[in-house]
Amino acid sequence: MSFKDHLQNSKKLVDDYIQNYLGDLEPTLSRPGLQELYKSFSYSLAEGGNRIRPILSLLTAEALNTPAEKVLPLGAAVELIHTYSLIHDDLPCMDDDDLRRGKPANHKMFGEAMAVLAGDALNTEAFFLLTKNYSSQPELALDLVSELALAAGAQGMVGGQAVDVTFKGRDVDSAEVEFLHTYKTGALFRISILGAARICNGNAYQLKCLSDYARAFGLIFQIADDIKDGNKNTEPSFVKAVGLEKAKETCAALLQQAHQALESFGDRARGLKDLVSHLYERI
Amino acid sequence: MSFKDHLQNSKKLVDDYIQNYLGDLEPTLSRPGLQELYKSFSYSLAEGGNRIRPILSLLTAEALNTPAEKVLPLGAAVELIHTYSLIHDDLPCMDDDDLRRGKPANHKMFGEAMAVLAGDALNTEAFFLLTKNYSSQPELALDLVSELALAAGAQGMVGGQAVDVTFKGRDVDSAEVEFLHTYKTGALFRISILGAARICNGNAYQLKCLSDYARAFGLIFQIADDIKDGNKNTEPSFVKAVGLEKAKETCAALLQQAHQALESFGDRARGLKDLVSHLYERI
Repeated sequence: MSFKDHLQNSKKLVDDYIQNYLGDLEPTLSRPGLQELYKSFSYSLAEGGNRIRPILSLLTAEALNTPAEKVLPLGAAVELIHTYSLIHDDLPCMDDDDLRRGKPANHKMFGEAMAVLAGDALNTEAFFLLTKNYSSQPELALDLVSELALAAGAQGMVGGQAVDVTFKGRDVDSAEVEFLHTYKTGALFRISILGAARICNGNAYQLKCLSDYARAFGLIFQIADDIKDGNKNTEPSFVKAVGLEKAKETCAALLQQAHQALESFGDRARGLKDLVSHLYERI
Repeated sequence: MSFKDHLQNSKKLVDDYIQNYLGDLEPTLSRPGLQELYKSFSYSLAEGGNRIRPILSLLTAEALNTPAEKVLPLGAAVELIHTYSLIHDDLPCMDDDDLRRGKPANHKMFGEAMAVLAGDALNTEAFFLLTKNYSSQPELALDLVSELALAAGAQGMVGGQAVDVTFKGRDVDSAEVEFLHTYKTGALFRISILGAARICNGNAYQLKCLSDYARAFGLIFQIADDIKDGNKNTEPSFVKAVGLEKAKETCAALLQQAHQALESFGDRARGLKDLVSHLYERI
């Protein structure tokens, strides 16, 4: 199967899972007011995006020879967290974006108050989704809740956004940029991969390798974004911190690290390998 | 011990627990940006309020002859959720309140962007707090996470807020007002009481009684609030729906129900009994 087809198939699994999840939820939120809330958060969750986080969970399951169904709930929970963060990010008091993925931002469709609530609901529902779907293995479920909360909270994604908010405008060095992105975007990539590995009973060595992969993946993702954006935005950026050439060199070294980290998985890790190569090629 | 002293002692236990919790968290959030986030959410969490939700957990533990320490983490987790909801509620796009408990609202102190993030962080940290403190009993911990997520999310508090947002201005009957408050404030009272009962190994009959108590408590709390506010605000209100006299009658009946629900606990439920009587007397 070509990488493109592989990616499309994985994305379809995720989209279908989320569609079913929303379908199950809808009847429980049929009252006036609740219906509006449902419409608001399902608008942002259903129209998707690249689903890269749940896809990372699926590709990790492949690397560990485990059926996709096992990790779909985790991937979806991470996607709920990611989606809530986008809804809140787009608010006028945050990045003030009217458009998201070419469509009106949540608050442009449903108003700011409902957008705040839709984000809040998705944040909470992510944890409910985990408890519901992994309840037959309470220790695993608890571990996933704990790790997702850490990855999403003050010591993870939200912390990264706070750092970002306070950074705005001032010059930062590459260590600070790495720190920022490790929190802001890296933490959710990490839980998508390592949470999946935990579900698939990865051993300590495999977890170590996947942790190295996750780090390299997150940084390449971010540097590629920075290179694409050039000097357009006011965000802290690797390109601004170290220059374009050095940023490209760093990326090439990280790609090598990512591939090396996957060596012991052999051909089963082809999806993870192709995905990071694909990211790199965007540069 | 007088009821006033009893309440003060319980509140001090909660305040001390939350102070320690924040003290443990602070060193993990010492970087620039993270420090701002910490200051923002600890500002709203530390200055407190009446702590009625964690106090309900403590009084439930007393009724079930269980040490307070067992239920403090649950009570604190509910308080984190309650605090995040207040921070988001006060935002200009929500209720637009400049003051909270006589002090500047979170966004007046730290800016709107940081207030959104502080709320988001507290929402997530509540679940982390549960996993961390009840990990020695994974099934219990998972149950608490699940129940708190339900109580706080679209089918609980956030759902109630969404109903509230869409209600604004239009006339509603008493059934709708009860529905709204069951979601908006009742769900967190309920988890404070029933989550504590679960931790304290309450039996099915005790859970049933405490569930009846929780319902009556929540409604009295809300009707008392509505009576106090009179026709000042534009929120849906029992008083507006059924008139002042009928609202007072309903409250008297609910008080009797709450007391009856506690009968089988004998004197150990004195705290719960006094608390609901105290609420009633505010009318």
